[in-house]
This record gives sequence, structure tokens and C-alpha cells, in this order.
Amino acid sequence: MTRIIFMGFGNVGFHLCSALHKIDHVSVNQIYSRNSITLASELKSIPTTHKLSEIEDADVYIIAIPDDAIAHFSETLPFKNKLVVHTSGSVAMNALSEKNRRGVFYPLQTFSKNRNVSFKEIPFCLETENASDLAILKSLASTLSETVVEINSEERAKLHLAAVFVNNFVNHIYSISHDYLLDNNISFDLLKPLIAETAAKIQSLPPSEVQTGPAKRNDKNTIEKHLHLLEDGPYSQLYKELTKAIVEKYKTETEDDTRKEL
Amino acid sequence: MTRIIFMGFGNVGFHLCSALHKIDHVSVNQIYSRNSITLASELKSIPTTHKLSEIEDADVYIIAIPDDAIAHFSETLPFKNKLVVHTSGSVAMNALSEKNRRGVFYPLQTFSKNRNVSFKEIPFCLETENASDLAILKSLASTLSETVVEINSEERAKLHLAAVFVNNFVNHIYSISHDYLLDNNISFDLLKPLIAETAAKIQSLPPSEVQTGPAKRNDKNTIEKHLHLLEDGPYSQLYKELTKAIVEKYKTETEDDTRKEL
Repeated sequence: MTRIIFMGFGNVGFHLCSALHKIDHVSVNQIYSRNSITLASELKSIPTTHKLSEIEDADVYIIAIPDDAIAHFSETLPFKNKLVVHTSGSVAMNALSEKNRRGVFYPLQTFSKNRNVSFKEIPFCLETENASDLAILKSLASTLSETVVEINSEERAKLHLAAVFVNNFVNHIYSISHDYLLDNNISFDLLKPLIAETAAKIQSLPPSEVQTGPAKRNDKNTIEKHLHLLEDGPYSQLYKELTKAIVEKYKTETEDDTRKEL
Repeated sequence: MTRIIFMGFGNVGFHLCSALHKIDHVSVNQIYSRNSITLASELKSIPTTHKLSEIEDADVYIIAIPDDAIAHFSETLPFKNKLVVHTSGSVAMNALSEKNRRGVFYPLQTFSKNRNVSFKEIPFCLETENASDLAILKSLASTLSETVVEINSEERAKLHLAAVFVNNFVNHIYSISHDYLLDNNISFDLLKPLIAETAAKIQSLPPSEVQTGPAKRNDKNTIEKHLHLLEDGPYSQLYKELTKAIVEKYKTETEDDTRKEL
């Protein structure tokens, strides 16, 4: 039985705790949270505490708090030589206090309060100071997920940056389209199949192979029409930047290869 | 029986023709293409021609050629008073020659050569000069899809612009992440579940409700780390633009509401 204590209970903490709580050979023994929390019915049996001094003994301590609070919080822990891991993509392992055995247990996914996720498909990126601790994290992660990789802090920072592009930036682009259509009384629902297909395509094909559109074709006429529609509004600069980048990337391709496309 | 002739046979033409060819009350009578084309086995029975003079009589002529060629091509057609439609998101209906009855039959999706698409989920955006022609297009579209809407040229131009954001621009952002990870010997596969979930989330929730990340939190420390990783490379300007836009959009939200997130 691996005894786990969660410290912090935001979106990552909640989803990870719920998933680990269901596993037979894992026992979530306690949740520490500075703020008062209400546990969902399936987690009600887990004791909670607001006090660092009340944190119990465990095999793995999982810190799931905001990135910029991790380093200081790990210093305040009232124990040492324990396996203490954080769940962050962007924080280095050695940001954790060296008084404990350090590790990282990073589920590469976006978590929202009211949305279930299937952990089976979520890549777990692991890092530890000691090989024996890696085995502990691997055992936990591989019970949850089919994809478990060992990745050091430097690689993880790069992976997290790439994740910011495909999640945060992409979602903001969805937002722009949403708001633009709303302003023009056109239903955003019409774009949903396109959004789904755009994401589905790159599951099997490299993104550069499925790029289409006026910028790829360097179709100046359509680009001009779009800039006219955007006038000097909030999205025209971004349209120009992205169009320029796409034109640059594909400009060496023969124009014969152009196909009628979106 | 609705008799159809395709003019142009790129990705849109191929997929649309294949879908319509399967319908009982539709007959694809001919394909006109300037270039020589090889028909897939299931379409082999359809006669093809390179010559405008050989185009036969039909109920609907579907022009599926590059946007900038549509206007001129429609002028060269050797017949009049027929229902002639194009399939473009960005070209106005009245770009078609007025010697025929004009219309638009726009499937809002991205099509690739080697990828099957399910037409059932694809929104068809229709426009015609005459109400009776609209009925013909509606009958065709609703046999293929569950979503058929009437949209005028002005609205369609805006919808197409929004589609460029969520498809072309989003796919380019996938490309950036792909190339960045490749340069750093990190597998792009690790991002695929995140990409899928990011697109899945907005099928049920507005994008602004699921926005996360350092820019939304205005987490200057993480943003600085990312800019340091990107140095002055090809992606730093875009990172700055998008980050600035997200910071601006969410800056009025209370900081208390910040949750630990990607």
C-alpha cells in the first residue's frame, strides 16, 4: 500500500486525488489545504487539515499548489527525508527544498473543475533525485496512465512551453473567433466540427502536412479581404503576425501544389 | 433525381463528390477538370472531361476550384440560366457570372486528400438568388448533414475569417510546437492528448471559461522563463503578442480566483 498525502487542492489536486483514491494499492491518507475545502462525496472519507503541524506520515507527498508558491511551501514542511513531489510543468525539481527527497509528478493535461478527464491517455512526466523514488512514482503513474516518461527539469520546461502554445494560445484563438462571431450575430457552434477535425488531424499527421488556407497559398486577395474585415480592431495585428509566419514557412513550396482548401 | 456536375476536383471536390455520389436520389453525371485526374474506384463510373464544350446538361453545377479562379471560370461556362454554385467560404455569391442562377454550397470543414470526413457533422452554409434554388440546395445538403444554414455572403466572409483563426492559425501553432519539440528531441506525441482535450473542452464550454495558463494568471515569473527559453528565436514575437492579448483580456478578473493550472 502506497500512502499519499495531497498538499493543495486546486484543479490538478482534485482530479489527481480522485484518480489515485480509486486505486486499490494506494491510500490517500490526508489532504492539506490552507483554504477550507469541500470534498466531493467520493472523497469524504479522506481527513483534511489546515495545519502543517498535523500533516501525517506518508510514502509520497504531492504538492499541487500554484507554481510560484512551491519553493517556499516546500521549505516550511515540518519533516525531512520524505519523498516530496510537485505536479508542475514549469518549476524545476530543485526548486523543492533539499531537506526532503525530491521528485516531479507532472500530468501533462489541462484540468477544469467541472470536467472529467480520462487519466489513461494523460502522459505522466516523472523526475526524481533517487532511482528508488523513480520506481515508486512509475508504479503510481503507470496504474493511472498508459504513457509514463522520465523527463528532466530542462526538457520539462520546454515541453511545458510547447503545451502553453497548443493549449493556452490555441484556446485564446478559439476565444477570439467566439467573440468575433458573437459580435456579428453568427453562431460559434458552426465552427465546432472544424475545431474538432483540426485537432483530430494532427493525431495521425504532422501539422505541417495538413496546413491549408490563404496564408499557406499566399493568397493576397483573400488576406486583404480578411484584413479589411478586421479593420484596425483588436485582432488585426495577430492576423498579420500569424499570416506572415505561415507565408514564410511555406513560401518555398511549389505553387503547382496548391489545392483548393479552406 | 438531382443531376450534378462537378467542375474542379481538388480536396473539396473529391470529398463532396464522393459523398453525393452515394446518395440514391442524386446522380453525379460528369466531372470537369482542367487537369487530368484519376478517379478512385468507387467513382470510376463517372465520365470526365477537360473540355468546357463537352459539359452536359444538369440540375446543379458545383464549382470547386481555387477561390481566385471562380469569377473568371464562371464567365467561361458555355450555358446560361442554370443553377451554378461555388463551394468557397470567402468568395461572394455575386462573384459568379450573372448569366446563370447563382448560389453557394459551402461545407465548413477542412479537407485533406488522405483523410475521410463524416459529412453528417459538417455545417453546410447555403445562399441562392432564388428561393426555389435554395430548396434544391437544402435538399442536397440535408441529405448529407444535420446542420444546414442559410448565410449571406457578408456573414459567410466573417465565418470564413473565424474559420481561418481556428483552423489555419491553430494548426500553425501546432506546427510551431511540433518543430520546437523536434529541435529539442522531445516527442510531439506527448502533446496529443492535451491538443485533443483543448479542442474537446470548447465543444461544451465557452473558450473564455476554460482559459488557463501563465498569461491568464499574469504569472510574470513563468512568462519570463518562457521568453528566456525562446530567446530571440522565431517564436518569441508570437509568444509576446499572444501573451499580451491574454493578459489584457483577463486582467480585470480577481486574482483570488486563480487556480493552479497548466
